[in-house]
Amino acid sequence: MNFKINEAIELLERTPETLSRLLTGLSPGWLTCNEGGDTWNVLEVVAHLIEGEKVNWIPRINMILTKGENYTFPPFDRFAHLSNSEKDIEQLLQEFKQCREESLALLKNELNAINDYEQSALHPEFGSVRLRELLSTWAVHDLTHISQITRIMAKRYKKDVGPWQSYLSILK
Amino acid sequence: MNFKINEAIELLERTPETLSRLLTGLSPGWLTCNEGGDTWNVLEVVAHLIEGEKVNWIPRINMILTKGENYTFPPFDRFAHLSNSEKDIEQLLQEFKQCREESLALLKNELNAINDYEQSALHPEFGSVRLRELLSTWAVHDLTHISQITRIMAKRYKKDVGPWQSYLSILK
Repeated sequence: MNFKINEAIELLERTPETLSRLLTGLSPGWLTCNEGGDTWNVLEVVAHLIEGEKVNWIPRINMILTKGENYTFPPFDRFAHLSNSEKDIEQLLQEFKQCREESLALLKNELNAINDYEQSALHPEFGSVRLRELLSTWAVHDLTHISQITRIMAKRYKKDVGPWQSYLSILK
Repeated sequence: MNFKINEAIELLERTPETLSRLLTGLSPGWLTCNEGGDTWNVLEVVAHLIEGEKVNWIPRINMILTKGENYTFPPFDRFAHLSNSEKDIEQLLQEFKQCREESLALLKNELNAINDYEQSALHPEFGSVRLRELLSTWAVHDLTHISQITRIMAKRYKKDVGPWQSYLSILK
């Protein structure tokens, strides 16, 4: 196990600015392309991150801290954000930055009172899940979606790279 | 085909700051973990990006522009950078930023004279490759390594996320 709360927070703090540097001012082609079918574009991924701040991470942390091991999380609708993705990228990035700052302020406020990261609640699908697992997942979820964004954009040039496609595992 | 030189440059310009925001000041655990065996850590990936600026992208562009379709690129040693990865992350990020700025200044300087992105040279493995394919590959190569960095870091928490592992495709 590698989880340390301060190291998880390091990642959570960096995601909004990382995405801002990657995405602000990009041409629409990069922001509206997707991986085909019903897959998400970059705007939809950022909207999904915002939704997580609002209804998933901090609310579930609070449920573990206040409701205890026999309480079952309400399910998280992973598609609720799609109604929010009509905004432009600058609006979405600003909103994500603000939501994340609020989330981390709330988390840091609670940290003094947290002396047991083994506290748990019930996940509707997985059963018992621990606070340290939820916090680790929040950080990895950020990394997953940064990776997804780079993959969505890379695939836009799948044919353009010609024979180099065989070297570029992101295109597979 | 989606390649447009200005849109490719948009990505190339953003990578150094994106990586700086993601990586500056992180705890050593995030920077020195790898995916097992001989795989690269985050420092080694940034060192690889620096090496590409020095010996791969602009040199090969110049070979296409000046040597022509019968010239074969010298092979690119994809492991030459490993001697450079003893530096700390701030030094590496600063060096990458500076190298990339120089690369893009050279590229932009040459753009006025480039009227044919179909110009080609010979790749030692692939045979004929075109200028537009090389430029597209440069941009996708950046995205590949941003994605790799997030994957390396995510895997550090592979066990820590507990049952959520099944939702997080980056961990597979």
